[in-house]
Amino acid sequence: MRISVFRKAHFNAAHRLNSSLLSVQENERIFGKCNRPNYHGHNYDLEVKVSGEVDPVTGYLIDLGVLKDIIAEQVTDYLDHRNLNLDIPEFRDLNPTAENIAIVIWKLLRPHLDERFDLQVRLYETERNYVEFPVS
Amino acid sequence: MRISVFRKAHFNAAHRLNSSLLSVQENERIFGKCNRPNYHGHNYDLEVKVSGEVDPVTGYLIDLGVLKDIIAEQVTDYLDHRNLNLDIPEFRDLNPTAENIAIVIWKLLRPHLDERFDLQVRLYETERNYVEFPVS
Amino acid sequence: MRISVFRKAHFNAAHRLNSSLLSVQENERIFGKCNRPNYHGHNYDLEVKVSGEVDPVTGYLIDLGVLKDIIAEQVTDYLDHRNLNLDIPEFRDLNPTAENIAIVIWKLLRPHLDERFDLQVRLYETERNYVEFPVS
Amino acid sequence: MRISVFRKAHFNAAHRLNSSLLSVQENERIFGKCNRPNYHGHNYDLEVKVSGEVDPVTGYLIDLGVLKDIIAEQVTDYLDHRNLNLDIPEFRDLNPTAENIAIVIWKLLRPHLDERFDLQVRLYETERNYVEFPVS
Amino acid sequence: MRISVFRKAHFNAAHRLNSSLLSVQENERIFGKCNRPNYHGHNYDLEVKVSGEVDPVTGYLIDLGVLKDIIAEQVTDYLDHRNLNLDIPEFRDLNPTAENIAIVIWKLLRPHLDERFDLQVRLYETERNYVEFPVS
Amino acid sequence: MRISVFRKAHFNAAHRLNSSLLSVQENERIFGKCNRPNYHGHNYDLEVKVSGEVDPVTGYLIDLGVLKDIIAEQVTDYLDHRNLNLDIPEFRDLNPTAENIAIVIWKLLRPHLDERFDLQVRLYETERNYVEFPVS
Repeated sequence: MRISVFRKAHFNAAHRLNSSLLSVQENERIFGKCNRPNYHGHNYDLEVKVSGEVDPVTGYLIDLGVLKDIIAEQVTDYLDHRNLNLDIPEFRDLNPTAENIAIVIWKLLRPHLDERFDLQVRLYETERNYVEFPVS
Repeated sequence: MRISVFRKAHFNAAHRLNSSLLSVQENERIFGKCNRPNYHGHNYDLEVKVSGEVDPVTGYLIDLGVLKDIIAEQVTDYLDHRNLNLDIPEFRDLNPTAENIAIVIWKLLRPHLDERFDLQVRLYETERNYVEFPVS
Repeated sequence: MRISVFRKAHFNAAHRLNSSLLSVQENERIFGKCNRPNYHGHNYDLEVKVSGEVDPVTGYLIDLGVLKDIIAEQVTDYLDHRNLNLDIPEFRDLNPTAENIAIVIWKLLRPHLDERFDLQVRLYETERNYVEFPVS
Repeated sequence: MRISVFRKAHFNAAHRLNSSLLSVQENERIFGKCNRPNYHGHNYDLEVKVSGEVDPVTGYLIDLGVLKDIIAEQVTDYLDHRNLNLDIPEFRDLNPTAENIAIVIWKLLRPHLDERFDLQVRLYETERNYVEFPVS
Repeated sequence: MRISVFRKAHFNAAHRLNSSLLSVQENERIFGKCNRPNYHGHNYDLEVKVSGEVDPVTGYLIDLGVLKDIIAEQVTDYLDHRNLNLDIPEFRDLNPTAENIAIVIWKLLRPHLDERFDLQVRLYETERNYVEFPVS
Repeated sequence: MRISVFRKAHFNAAHRLNSSLLSVQENERIFGKCNRPNYHGHNYDLEVKVSGEVDPVTGYLIDLGVLKDIIAEQVTDYLDHRNLNLDIPEFRDLNPTAENIAIVIWKLLRPHLDERFDLQVRLYETERNYVEFPVS
């Protein structure tokens, strides 16, 4: 009786795409307007998927109120209304692409979920662009 | 040429979360406002996923009109505008969490679909909380 | 420089449609499955529209954080995870149709907003059915 | 035969709320996390409403391709992937609240639409917060 | 106690934009790919708004089940899975722009609603383009 | 560090369901109003999923601007504002069901993506009906 539960969350943040492994010219060429120096921003929509066995006593996989609190404490309170490049240590040397943000979020959440659960995150940067980690 | 087709459906129902395996105090503590005695309710959105081989003559995996009717007859006509705890025998001794509702819906649909098809259901309790059974 | 700001909120509630001014038979005939005795429920989506002059100092019409708190305290904390017919005094003798719920919400909010503001509420009972009060 | 046509557009921008008419302490108190110095950002969704008489020859109120181009040239190319506070002269001395951004957008569009048309803009800062100018 | 109720409906149709008052060259120039001879199509989303006084006995403005049936009988059963140019007499000499389709729908519905109600329709041709008749 | 990125796109097209392997009567019986001779149409929403390893230098799986251009050139410019049955050679002898359109789109895209990437497409014919190829 393995099942998945999903919880959505949200944060707003500024960022610019800029890789410390690339020259100024390469960053401009590859990232275009996403590389502009004064930042732009997004409403990031996050979907967290937790998979495992349903508890036969409660009928819950995991208490979604508990999951909501973990997401808020570990992810959205930390990233919301922040500049990812300037304010968040994880992105000091890591380009805040949607891919890398999703992987960072997964690493922030993973230690706070019991080992019997599988975890996947989906991150919408815009309505048209989103990423999922890890691959399903 | 294996493919998946999805059909969405909808029903509105009342419920309360209350496990017959827990004491009154435990039910209150675990389920909080979802345990309130006079019920609350939801607009449940259901997505049914059927997977298999496309029929080379029709170009259909399954006639979505037929699938729509199966979902209506087996699930939404049965659950819509009902009190899950009081009106639906499957929940007499089963807590109507989103997880359990999704599993019940899967069991209601499975016998009515040909064995060559795989079946998965996704159930939205709110826009922010949903479940998927079985795990993909 | 008159402008409108909108804030969305959400609550889940159980109800049944039943008018104390109609007989049992008339209630059944008019309200059909919405009249079933054991209640059903909805995810109600609420949009609150406040109109007036922008404050030239702050650039706000009204602080949306303040508006959010007023909506929570006066409306959603009061109605969420409740049975409208049994738990909410305003519906003791008032049929909880979407129309009447919207009017009740308007009356709950109006005294808590400064007189210089106009107020309108939109209430979604389902994605396909919603009401707006007062008429614009 | 007066009718309204609507066209949606989109831009992503960084901003912080900070009024030049308020002290540092007042800005912090009033705008909270929206005042943080390193900016945050949004996916702004814009709906432009143009009203007037349908042209009996074409059946168009206005060619939506033309309207789309006006919105792109005057608004979204100008604001997209920008820092509203630092990059956009209109916000040098104007706090970039949703209210003020909507008014600025209305003023950018108005001269480019024929006088026989009425114009209204709706701006979503998040899915839950939006503004409309002028009042309808 | 004037209030508005809204009901959404849906139909899928083929059309091409072509005005009988314009030459072949003008039609091509003005309507571009929308003028292609073999038609294209849309999922049209329709929102019907009815305004008036709430009935104090039922708490309804209008029975939404009745309104749903009127919309189906007068509009969606008539237009769904049709070619607007070839199959629908109203568009024999009328270009099926979103504007004209909305006006035709309004005229189809108006005689079937009591005179005490005001009527407005909103028609989405795509998620980004929609029209509203009459002007509010 | 395998990840998936998704990009949404859109096209509007006319079609009718009609299999060259079936008689006129069988086509009518199986496809009903979808078989009507003058075509109907849809707003098709397409989600393209590309999976693989994140590039450690750029932080991208694939440049979404590049992916957007591939989708436009290979799929949406080709299918948009077209009659699938009459204008698109792939459907000369292939019934343009959602299943077959999804498979055609997958085949159009596959040669333009590096072999190190996995590809899946999801195609929405309406908000309630969609397909995914290949099975995940």
